[in-house]
Amino acid sequence: MSRQGTSVPQLAVKIDGGFWDRYQVLVRDTVIPYQWKAMNDEIPGAPKSHSVQNFRIASGVTPGVYDGMVFQDSDLAKWLEAAGNVLAGEPRGESGELRAWVEEAVDLISRAQQPDGYVNTYFTVKDPDGRWKNLREAHEMYCAGHLIEAGVSLHRGAGDQKILDVCRRLADHLDERFGTEPPKVRGYCGHEEIELALVKLGRLTGESRYLRLAQYFVDERGRSPSYFDVESSAPGFTPIFGVKSLDYYQAHVPVRQQKDAVGHAVRAMYLYTAMADLAIETGETELARACERLWESVTRRKMYVTGGIGSSAHLESFGADFDLPNDTAYAETCAAIGLFLFSSRMALLRDEAKYVDVMERALYNGIISGLGLDGVSYFYVNPLEVVPAVCDSNGSYRHVKYRRQPWYGCACCPPNIARTLSAIGDHAYHQRGDTLFADLYHEGTASVPVDGRVVRLRQSTRYPWEGSVRFQPLDDASSPFTLALRIPGWSRGHEIRLNGSAVAGAPGPDGYVRVKRNWRKTDVLELSLPLPVERVHADPRVRADLGRVALQRGPIVYCLEEADNGANLSYLRLPSDAPLEAIDRPDLLGGVVAIRAEGVHEPGQQTGARLYSVGGGPGGKSGTRDAPSARELLFIPYYAWANRAAGEMMVWARE
Amino acid sequence: MSRQGTSVPQLAVKIDGGFWDRYQVLVRDTVIPYQWKAMNDEIPGAPKSHSVQNFRIASGVTPGVYDGMVFQDSDLAKWLEAAGNVLAGEPRGESGELRAWVEEAVDLISRAQQPDGYVNTYFTVKDPDGRWKNLREAHEMYCAGHLIEAGVSLHRGAGDQKILDVCRRLADHLDERFGTEPPKVRGYCGHEEIELALVKLGRLTGESRYLRLAQYFVDERGRSPSYFDVESSAPGFTPIFGVKSLDYYQAHVPVRQQKDAVGHAVRAMYLYTAMADLAIETGETELARACERLWESVTRRKMYVTGGIGSSAHLESFGADFDLPNDTAYAETCAAIGLFLFSSRMALLRDEAKYVDVMERALYNGIISGLGLDGVSYFYVNPLEVVPAVCDSNGSYRHVKYRRQPWYGCACCPPNIARTLSAIGDHAYHQRGDTLFADLYHEGTASVPVDGRVVRLRQSTRYPWEGSVRFQPLDDASSPFTLALRIPGWSRGHEIRLNGSAVAGAPGPDGYVRVKRNWRKTDVLELSLPLPVERVHADPRVRADLGRVALQRGPIVYCLEEADNGANLSYLRLPSDAPLEAIDRPDLLGGVVAIRAEGVHEPGQQTGARLYSVGGGPGGKSGTRDAPSARELLFIPYYAWANRAAGEMMVWARE
Repeated sequence: MSRQGTSVPQLAVKIDGGFWDRYQVLVRDTVIPYQWKAMNDEIPGAPKSHSVQNFRIASGVTPGVYDGMVFQDSDLAKWLEAAGNVLAGEPRGESGELRAWVEEAVDLISRAQQPDGYVNTYFTVKDPDGRWKNLREAHEMYCAGHLIEAGVSLHRGAGDQKILDVCRRLADHLDERFGTEPPKVRGYCGHEEIELALVKLGRLTGESRYLRLAQYFVDERGRSPSYFDVESSAPGFTPIFGVKSLDYYQAHVPVRQQKDAVGHAVRAMYLYTAMADLAIETGETELARACERLWESVTRRKMYVTGGIGSSAHLESFGADFDLPNDTAYAETCAAIGLFLFSSRMALLRDEAKYVDVMERALYNGIISGLGLDGVSYFYVNPLEVVPAVCDSNGSYRHVKYRRQPWYGCACCPPNIARTLSAIGDHAYHQRGDTLFADLYHEGTASVPVDGRVVRLRQSTRYPWEGSVRFQPLDDASSPFTLALRIPGWSRGHEIRLNGSAVAGAPGPDGYVRVKRNWRKTDVLELSLPLPVERVHADPRVRADLGRVALQRGPIVYCLEEADNGANLSYLRLPSDAPLEAIDRPDLLGGVVAIRAEGVHEPGQQTGARLYSVGGGPGGKSGTRDAPSARELLFIPYYAWANRAAGEMMVWARE
Repeated sequence: MSRQGTSVPQLAVKIDGGFWDRYQVLVRDTVIPYQWKAMNDEIPGAPKSHSVQNFRIASGVTPGVYDGMVFQDSDLAKWLEAAGNVLAGEPRGESGELRAWVEEAVDLISRAQQPDGYVNTYFTVKDPDGRWKNLREAHEMYCAGHLIEAGVSLHRGAGDQKILDVCRRLADHLDERFGTEPPKVRGYCGHEEIELALVKLGRLTGESRYLRLAQYFVDERGRSPSYFDVESSAPGFTPIFGVKSLDYYQAHVPVRQQKDAVGHAVRAMYLYTAMADLAIETGETELARACERLWESVTRRKMYVTGGIGSSAHLESFGADFDLPNDTAYAETCAAIGLFLFSSRMALLRDEAKYVDVMERALYNGIISGLGLDGVSYFYVNPLEVVPAVCDSNGSYRHVKYRRQPWYGCACCPPNIARTLSAIGDHAYHQRGDTLFADLYHEGTASVPVDGRVVRLRQSTRYPWEGSVRFQPLDDASSPFTLALRIPGWSRGHEIRLNGSAVAGAPGPDGYVRVKRNWRKTDVLELSLPLPVERVHADPRVRADLGRVALQRGPIVYCLEEADNGANLSYLRLPSDAPLEAIDRPDLLGGVVAIRAEGVHEPGQQTGARLYSVGGGPGGKSGTRDAPSARELLFIPYYAWANRAAGEMMVWARE
């Protein structure tokens, strides 16, 4: 069923050190327990989730009324997916408490499933007659999709058969109801997610109906007349959010004709991810080309330097090309996760390093910025510039928070981060034929299938803080295979050594350097990526970044924060010839490489002078003004902002 | 009653040439007739006004139901005020059509007045029981205030006694109902306007009750507990817009304790204008100081370079200090008009040129930008940067239009422009003791009271395009008086000549140069203001303008428009040493001085290259990129933008 020679690695990478290990431990020991409490409404002072309680009510365990968003079920499902990922890395007899929570949740879900396979607490408890009557807005298939992803993860990670059975019956229910053959309904969901979930379920179970159903949902989308318009004209239709524009749902034209990423950014990403999944499965050229076009639209014209996407708070949507305001940015954590997922599928589809570059851009910046270093505080919106006083006094910034939040009424992001970070290992490598592509550099051990055998491999690195990555096979190989090392797009002057001797290292057009060899367990292959501090400039069509510069080192984008540089960050200037120095700061923000720069402090007009100054120099009208002075600036990784006292933050500095 | 020695000039300036004459003619011949049609719902394709129709219904002339905003009456009132201004400059026997329209409108208003003096078509027609029950939101006194301003104008301009009687009865009704003495109600209006109107009516009629009532409304505002909170807790209170925050209404603290301009920008300006009016009338120091503080708050921290204010579309409000985004700017035309009015009162209060500088900044830029050169198309919102594709595709910009509109459902701005431009002459001079202050330079003839006599004076200039202004007395004076010439804040190196001989011309701390003389009608006093093209920089706390420069010449702020410079204006750069040349362009946009500059065209990445480029030079990763090239740029006056094909516009260019 899969495209010849490709396989999706089956969670066979164990991260045990370095940058990502800290996150594996944080998710397992802090995030997962905290979120279970949050979904059980046990966090004092945090908005109530109601997610578990709704399942208790739907399953008949507790009386009560439904509460929360219409898609509240999905929070628990994403948490279960994360739990499955975590359990996959734990020995059977351990993590007893987590296993008990999972068992409780699975039991509730199983009881809440209706005889026909339907699972959704909102409609089961609150509006039984409303089932499947508002596909545009009710998120029923969206919730079903997350539940199916949870089922796949728990089955893989914990061998859970009960949840997989629930998911199959749910998928069968969808398959019986939706499709082109009468009397099926030709509908599809307003929030994409079920499509990629059905691909996962199809891959796991080998059931081709699930893949065909995913294909149907993708193919049906955007046909005219729109199902959404037909449905909402029916008697008794009850709007929930009231958004009617079809491009918000990526349902304005059939997917193969879509050229620009439009509408709700998370929905778009989940759709494109499913499209790429299906292109992988079927080998369809037209769909693959549509995916490429849409990926280009996002990453070349609508993406922040942090990998954040969806610049507009209005409907959480994409703006126009190059419309990327820094301070009113939406850049939802979930959207960056969606871009990571879409790019991961494109990497599998095309074997090109540029897709992994974007995965890293999102992961090291706009995704983990959504999680506090403490594991229990979150950002939904990820701006690139914040002035607290502005956020406090102007309603146009009401979506922007400068303090991390303990939970949200609409809490899609926190469990989405949990399931993403606990699955990093899945994206570390991919394989085609006799080639093992090393994608995300990390410290850990892999057991991955290559060309019919399992290769075991150790990778050691302090990436992204240091640029050296060592590979050591753990066994002697029975026959040669190729290790393809990704050379990141930002890299210049890398070196590769095999057992100490330089290897010719120019990457191919795909961005990988291939080393083919009959690998021995005594071999050491070492990649060295120089990590100078780089000045980044945006395309000048990005008006918000005109005359400004950002700093990047490796995949890490930096920012200025008030905690290090004082207030009025806009007084600071980073001249184009300012010396920049990377400094190791194990004491700072959980251990980071910071950047010290020789900047300039150019204060504003003094009190009593003009807001706008004319001329300058002798005879000028600039008003009383302090002379510019040298100022040492400290840049920290963007992802680590807002972990100290609340204050200003700025990614793009005046140059 | 007035502060000793000060008088408000009584419409004795006739503008008959130069920059402002074009607008006098446009308002009289085009704007006023067009707006009468608009308010009679006779403009095809434009949103209906209902303003006149509502009065027809309220007066019993026509059956029907009320339509339009709750404050729709005020549109007709503002138009009548403009009509009065126009008629003041016309010989008695002329403008027959306009006089007929005015008579019709006044007759309807008179018939719509209730026996107790109340005038408001919304409550008379639609909600008689709702009268005075929602002062916070219902705009009843706001509409009354505009009607009173219209009455004062029509009485002055056309000797209309009927409308003045209506206004007195309306004011008496308010005076009977509101105040501190029981059983009066201690309320005040959510949208300030009645206060400044009552000052006008008091000045005209000599009736001190009107001034005392204005003073009451100003003093009562912001007392605790808030009248608005008490009123909205009453049984049967019906919210209209639902805005509860007291600072939106400038009712959060008593006015004398207010330090920062907050809330709805137009409301704030009208309140501050009334406060300054009362400080003039009473000489109260504390109130005058509050006015100064608030004026500083606006003009030093919350004002666009165009004189636009109220940066946030959310509640049409002020943002935080220095929060002045260019592309999502609100900068409502009415708010700039309000700043003009507030500053005009401050100039009368303090005799300082800086206040007139701000009047000019607003007038020449952010006010007349609201009126198309054709007189029949309008902007409500006045952004400083526009990319049409961005406005089209991002809901966060839905308030920003890049094509002028024929009318609005909420049409506060069009008639506000009409009444403001037709009253420019009122602001040309002011007087104290033996000094006549020349404030707004213009071409025309004045008959103004100075120190107990009437001085007739001719002023000739092509200002703001040229910097020479000539003053010639039209009579020999019976005794000496002082002519005080305003030296604008942006001016450097002005010269003053009396009958050809240089006069010592250093301005005092108030910004005026005084020439005292026993003036003869043969005298010629000539002021020469050099008008170099100036580069303007914003205080660096204005993050939106970091690394950017604006051009200004005299009071005129310039912009780049796509019609002259092609698309992608952000590709253009104006280096700090680029030569700038003012060029006379009588052929362009009704005749302007444009600015030609030697700029640089720095195109974006070519297709296929990166959105974010790292490094540069040899070995860099900047992608394929066209080399920067010299490019001649043409800047036009900001006020004249959007009078050709729709396209991009930008005030602040990359430097």
